[in-house]
Amino acid sequence: MKKPTHQLLVIFGASGDLTRRKLVPALFDLFLQNLLPAKFAVLGVSRTPFSDEQFRDSMKEFLPSNEAAANFLKFLHYQPLETSRNSDYPALKTRLSQIDNELGLGGNYIFYLSTPPSLYSIIPRYLSEAGLSRSETGFRRLIVEKPFGTDLETARRLNVELLNYFDEKQIYRIDHYLGKETVQNMLVTRFANGIFEPLWNHTFIRHVEVTSAESLGVEGRGGYYDHSGALRDMVQNHLLQLVGFVAMEPPAVMEADAIRNETLKVFQALRPIRENMVENYVIRGQYTASTIKGQPVPGYRQEEGVDRHSRTETFLAMKFFIDNWRWAGVPFYIRTGKKLPARVTEVVVNFKHVPHHLFSASPGYQPVSNQLVIRIQPDEGVLLKFGMKIPGAGFNIQTVNMNFHYSELTDLHLPSAYERLLLDCMQGDATLYARGDAVEEAWRFVQPILNAWGSNPEIPIYGYPAGSWGPHEAEKLITGDQWRYPCKNLTDDGLYCEL
Amino acid sequence: MKKPTHQLLVIFGASGDLTRRKLVPALFDLFLQNLLPAKFAVLGVSRTPFSDEQFRDSMKEFLPSNEAAANFLKFLHYQPLETSRNSDYPALKTRLSQIDNELGLGGNYIFYLSTPPSLYSIIPRYLSEAGLSRSETGFRRLIVEKPFGTDLETARRLNVELLNYFDEKQIYRIDHYLGKETVQNMLVTRFANGIFEPLWNHTFIRHVEVTSAESLGVEGRGGYYDHSGALRDMVQNHLLQLVGFVAMEPPAVMEADAIRNETLKVFQALRPIRENMVENYVIRGQYTASTIKGQPVPGYRQEEGVDRHSRTETFLAMKFFIDNWRWAGVPFYIRTGKKLPARVTEVVVNFKHVPHHLFSASPGYQPVSNQLVIRIQPDEGVLLKFGMKIPGAGFNIQTVNMNFHYSELTDLHLPSAYERLLLDCMQGDATLYARGDAVEEAWRFVQPILNAWGSNPEIPIYGYPAGSWGPHEAEKLITGDQWRYPCKNLTDDGLYCEL
Repeated sequence: MKKPTHQLLVIFGASGDLTRRKLVPALFDLFLQNLLPAKFAVLGVSRTPFSDEQFRDSMKEFLPSNEAAANFLKFLHYQPLETSRNSDYPALKTRLSQIDNELGLGGNYIFYLSTPPSLYSIIPRYLSEAGLSRSETGFRRLIVEKPFGTDLETARRLNVELLNYFDEKQIYRIDHYLGKETVQNMLVTRFANGIFEPLWNHTFIRHVEVTSAESLGVEGRGGYYDHSGALRDMVQNHLLQLVGFVAMEPPAVMEADAIRNETLKVFQALRPIRENMVENYVIRGQYTASTIKGQPVPGYRQEEGVDRHSRTETFLAMKFFIDNWRWAGVPFYIRTGKKLPARVTEVVVNFKHVPHHLFSASPGYQPVSNQLVIRIQPDEGVLLKFGMKIPGAGFNIQTVNMNFHYSELTDLHLPSAYERLLLDCMQGDATLYARGDAVEEAWRFVQPILNAWGSNPEIPIYGYPAGSWGPHEAEKLITGDQWRYPCKNLTDDGLYCEL
Repeated sequence: MKKPTHQLLVIFGASGDLTRRKLVPALFDLFLQNLLPAKFAVLGVSRTPFSDEQFRDSMKEFLPSNEAAANFLKFLHYQPLETSRNSDYPALKTRLSQIDNELGLGGNYIFYLSTPPSLYSIIPRYLSEAGLSRSETGFRRLIVEKPFGTDLETARRLNVELLNYFDEKQIYRIDHYLGKETVQNMLVTRFANGIFEPLWNHTFIRHVEVTSAESLGVEGRGGYYDHSGALRDMVQNHLLQLVGFVAMEPPAVMEADAIRNETLKVFQALRPIRENMVENYVIRGQYTASTIKGQPVPGYRQEEGVDRHSRTETFLAMKFFIDNWRWAGVPFYIRTGKKLPARVTEVVVNFKHVPHHLFSASPGYQPVSNQLVIRIQPDEGVLLKFGMKIPGAGFNIQTVNMNFHYSELTDLHLPSAYERLLLDCMQGDATLYARGDAVEEAWRFVQPILNAWGSNPEIPIYGYPAGSWGPHEAEKLITGDQWRYPCKNLTDDGLYCEL
């Protein structure tokens, strides 16, 4: 890998959790791999009145205590700033010039918005008004954290505002799922191998599942989550991006816009779920109190910060179609939830049965359900289920697994999503960032669901015991088939996982 | 499994090695699985003047010493017979009737010819003349061991002779490769799964390899082998049968003649290798003295029983085409030999590269060579090679393995080829036996090679060091590609196998 050119990374929200837990450790990992620019600085910005030294000290506990970390910390600088006060920005500009001149960074700045969403349009405006959003000499890039809007309207408005101050080419919208190795590996699996793509269409695929299950609940973030819910928190962004990678046509080149054009085309081809269809196509649920391994577990409405009458979904399963030539008639099923039996994200491609059942005379014959399971996390890898002959007389068939675990490539460092995304932005590669039009298109697709839930209190929100795979109603979505359950229900007889 | 109906199994050549080492142990295994007929007897026949008791005693050392074996031995009977003397057969007939009547076997007889090939036409003739080859009441079946002829002419003549005395439906020609689990599993892999068959043609397959390597030499059978050679011993029968299963069209039903019709069609579609093409399409070799792990190893011509100037091939590699719609233009490569680095039989389906190289900008890009390796022996299983993303920045690709080992189905008994074949014949299922027309067709294909070698002493026979993968000339057969070498040469730096 080439090192990125000289630059300055400005992190707004530098005293926040994301900076400490994700961004600075990711930068340190890049440092260890010698992938940071030869001339480089980080400027942390937030309200807290830190000095450079205090800021460095505040990061120490998130890094190992060794010489490398000590050297790395020298990159960090700090500038206290009231981000919502326009008059503070000239001081920021001065500080940036000072560091830039001192280190010779060529006027290349990245602004990383790791702040509350309410600041996503304010900071760019003030940066622009301070003359920081564009430069004759260096590049100026803007990274915007999730969530990008809370519905179609707010997302559109945010795009309009950002584009007042930055060009689309300058804007990097984070979807940290796209930074995950195994999500990127989906492109390699599909397009570097000759054997999958010929099967990757409605002729051979019965249906596609995308599951992102969490075993945790809201974990103290109940107040935030109760205003978001699974649809906003997981589906509109992460899961639809995954669907985009699973379903896209092969791009002509591995370049950001070529790939993002293909993702956009998938989103544009999503068959609209109209408000009156929502009840049949989207199942929402909320976890209820249960007992896991003998321990009582509270329900969602008992969690701290959650409204006692909350109708926020902690589980969502939905069915939809992609109306294009490749996917005509193939149902896609998405499922996500909190307090499910395991933490697992996977894409399951379910292939059609054989067209002619040659072995149907064998006693107990069941058609083989070929599945390709692409595990995103944990235990990243690929699993292929196929039928083999049971040894012995006759031709009896058993489904077996062929397995590849990413961990078998043990000598390789598995970079975090943020590590990848930061490096990409430093190199000006937006492939793994969401483009504005795609984000809006994803919101457009889910908006009728928000509308239906908002306007029709008759649409049920089903309870499901914490530790189970969600409400039974979700099972009925898949006609004549069933979801893959990679683990058993925790509320039953303990945990068995095939991951 | 249903038990076969009552019957009597007559083994000619009962004092021979095959009976002791393969047939009787296979019958005992069937007995343990309760798969022998409720009323059943074995009658061993050969020149040795055994009593029933002496015959049973002679089998004891090839069975465990337990109660089950003691019970099983009661099935065994013996009749001394000069098989080449017609006048001995009435005594055989009397003995058969006697056992039949005593045990109530309904006149169902199988005659198993485990004798020298010179008796393959004599015994059936005398059986027929004694009125034993057909019956109004029970079935009469004839199992013929390999080799079935030594060239096209002798095979044709043998077929004609057998058909004088038995109908084709009564004749079961052994090819013990077809009794192997993993060979049968080829049919299941191809036709019970929806994901392989769409790729199984010239559009997606680059070439197919079939390798059957032995690490042993002639092991005291030099006298026999020197009159046979790899082409007769392995290619005409086993390897072409494997090719038949790999290349056949899906049959309409899993019935003997439906399947054998499809195998025959493959053989009929083999593009003839004319005598003047042999030098370029067929590479023959003979192992020479070498050093393996510091130990000197003799060459073939130094083996006991082998002519010091022998031109018998212990190695053969060949290239051919199947001229039909499915396989147009796809080269098939066959390779077999003695004193190769490992004992391994496998079919390797090499898929074409991707049509568009999306990741070719990545440093060191090599197109992924997808391979499906079907391992016949040892360590039966399936291996799929495909490209995955190397973790980290960029889109670099590495070929990894997805693996399935039959041994993972540990609770299952892996039956021997003879066990399966005997049971099938007892049940009247000839699916895994070679049909006369297919055997002739296979001989027709290899006959020009025998002719060319016989008439043209200029065609070289290449030496190769014992423990290597054969002569270098074999490498040149595969144009623009290479054989899969599942193990390194023993003569190099020791054994590394990917099996």
